[in-house]
Amino acid sequence: MREVVVLGIGMSQFGKQPEKGIRELGEEALYNALIDAEIDKKKIQIAFCGYVLGSLNGQEVCPGQIVLRELGIGEIPVLRVENGCASASFAFKEAWRAVASGEYDVAVGMGIEKMTGLGKGAILKAMGGGSDFELEGNLGLTFPGVFAMIARRHMHEYGTTMKQLAMVAVKNRKNGSLNQKSQFREVVTIEDIENAKMIAHPLTLNHCCPFSDGCAVAILTTKEIARKYTTEPIFIASSVQKSGTYTDSLDITRFEPTIKASAEAYKLAGIGPEDINLAEVHDCFTIAEIIHYEDLGFCKKGEGGMLIENGATQIGGRIPVSTSGGLLSKGHPLGATGVAQIVEIVEQLRGKSGPRQVSNAKVGLAHCLGGFMHGDVCSCSVTILKK
Amino acid sequence: MREVVVLGIGMSQFGKQPEKGIRELGEEALYNALIDAEIDKKKIQIAFCGYVLGSLNGQEVCPGQIVLRELGIGEIPVLRVENGCASASFAFKEAWRAVASGEYDVAVGMGIEKMTGLGKGAILKAMGGGSDFELEGNLGLTFPGVFAMIARRHMHEYGTTMKQLAMVAVKNRKNGSLNQKSQFREVVTIEDIENAKMIAHPLTLNHCCPFSDGCAVAILTTKEIARKYTTEPIFIASSVQKSGTYTDSLDITRFEPTIKASAEAYKLAGIGPEDINLAEVHDCFTIAEIIHYEDLGFCKKGEGGMLIENGATQIGGRIPVSTSGGLLSKGHPLGATGVAQIVEIVEQLRGKSGPRQVSNAKVGLAHCLGGFMHGDVCSCSVTILKK
Repeated sequence: MREVVVLGIGMSQFGKQPEKGIRELGEEALYNALIDAEIDKKKIQIAFCGYVLGSLNGQEVCPGQIVLRELGIGEIPVLRVENGCASASFAFKEAWRAVASGEYDVAVGMGIEKMTGLGKGAILKAMGGGSDFELEGNLGLTFPGVFAMIARRHMHEYGTTMKQLAMVAVKNRKNGSLNQKSQFREVVTIEDIENAKMIAHPLTLNHCCPFSDGCAVAILTTKEIARKYTTEPIFIASSVQKSGTYTDSLDITRFEPTIKASAEAYKLAGIGPEDINLAEVHDCFTIAEIIHYEDLGFCKKGEGGMLIENGATQIGGRIPVSTSGGLLSKGHPLGATGVAQIVEIVEQLRGKSGPRQVSNAKVGLAHCLGGFMHGDVCSCSVTILKK
Repeated sequence: MREVVVLGIGMSQFGKQPEKGIRELGEEALYNALIDAEIDKKKIQIAFCGYVLGSLNGQEVCPGQIVLRELGIGEIPVLRVENGCASASFAFKEAWRAVASGEYDVAVGMGIEKMTGLGKGAILKAMGGGSDFELEGNLGLTFPGVFAMIARRHMHEYGTTMKQLAMVAVKNRKNGSLNQKSQFREVVTIEDIENAKMIAHPLTLNHCCPFSDGCAVAILTTKEIARKYTTEPIFIASSVQKSGTYTDSLDITRFEPTIKASAEAYKLAGIGPEDINLAEVHDCFTIAEIIHYEDLGFCKKGEGGMLIENGATQIGGRIPVSTSGGLLSKGHPLGATGVAQIVEIVEQLRGKSGPRQVSNAKVGLAHCLGGFMHGDVCSCSVTILKK
């Protein structure tokens, strides 16, 4: 298989943007990516588009086709890829394989989501479909409820504190305040978080990521073709996907797919977690980021709370996490998130992240989750990028 | 890229099966495919699942994961692929690339849909999302309306008759009567069709494919691995996907993506339309099959009506089409159709189609469409299989 690089990246503003439709969000991101890659749009040969809420309230089923056609890229195959909140990560991987296989030379991996304008109840019900609806959704279990139970268990097992959980939100909101594309730009304090509206005990509103509209795009090609356009392509060292299994231990404080996907991704890239300079993780709730620290090997099991408390995961720390602001601050337009993580890692590895730049960043990791079933996540993707 | 073969096929019963859920439909098809391939389920390394109506009425977003887990195939990456009614065709192509690239040795391409139990209005609205909803759906244009206009125009331009249109339904219902998995098993007459309920003039009920529940599965691997399991693998000669573009001519009686995808598929396979022994086409409406005859090169432009009238496309004719019964008779569980077409072609090429066997079938073609935008189809897939 051929070596694949990220040539260009682009994203739209993230946030609640009721005035924008699929077209506007998509054009903004794709146009930015084409400008960034400095490549003629006619070179794009195939596209994969992550997207979740289609068919809800009469939304488009195939937004990728619409966005590409609007920018004059017709005729080429365009696939919608969906795996719950990890949809764009899987779209990115398919774009990688389209190029790695030799079938295509230039591929787009993108993701898009339009959440404002839809009823909250309808969205929550649709997101419940990311679980095993026949068995779990009918019990009324929603994602905040799932992660609230996980938080309580992690606190019980490992002594993780509410302050440590809140520190994740404080960090990510601070990072988001430095990112012009972020949904939230205001910093918050631990007191703000404690005093916010209770969603599912012990998680208040600020422990949860918001509903968002947005699009993110990555343009992939071979190392050889990239040389014509740039002197600093970003290499995809590895990209591994796993699904959840029935866990014998029924330990809800660890996500086996993350552990397995990251282990294989490290192996394929020939590195270990200690070599990662920054990571974007699926911080859909504060407790999730703490568990990802552990599952990705940034610290030992049960020590995630201490990792945030001692500052290791803030910009300037040993392993900065969610430097973009993450899902908690930058926002979480479901189908776009996986590629938005890639956008952040690529910018950081290029040294172009301005006030939130991680110094000397050479290797970055993007981690995304989708869905939930029987106490384990449904889909997980781990991608390692390097200069 | 490596040569890829279809090792095993399986499908569930197609039809209205309100008593079955995603699990039951999926298990039936996947189990049949594993038995057919005579391969240990642990050999499956990745799966791609076509599926359309997820997130509608709280259905599962990721049915592939659920079905595979139920049969004890956990942990492996599973992707949902969606491109409207061509979803499974695109899933099949992704499975092809997973093996062709060398990343995986054994891949599943499947599709599933559960349409009963959902409100008809909700389904129609969701299917409208297969169009460009922002621009077209809001005008109230549904698929029967689109194809009714196309039929009227084809009749006007080329003298195609209502009898010729009806003969497509008569043929496909007859083929379906010979297929145990078919939704409809009763033959119909031209008079039955003329007397049926009017849906969108000139199309009566029997000119339209039904709502269906069903699942279809194909197991793909390399030629070398297949040798361990079978003496008669079916080769994937080519599989090409295209999207619709703004057509300058605005000629609604031809689908450019079909013309372009089939031209490229023939070229890659090193054959022409005259070499095809049978075809499964996207006969969502009777007029559609007639247009596909023309776009796929089975006859000249405008002569599709004559092709059905002279019997060329019936079993025993020059180029049998929709031998399974097609969407019109076998049924159209949206996300499953593309792989169900592959199932039929593979069975025919193996010479195992019983009363509907096409004699001396060596090369077969599967053609699927998804979505509609601005007078052209959104996605098209053409796959050529050979013994």
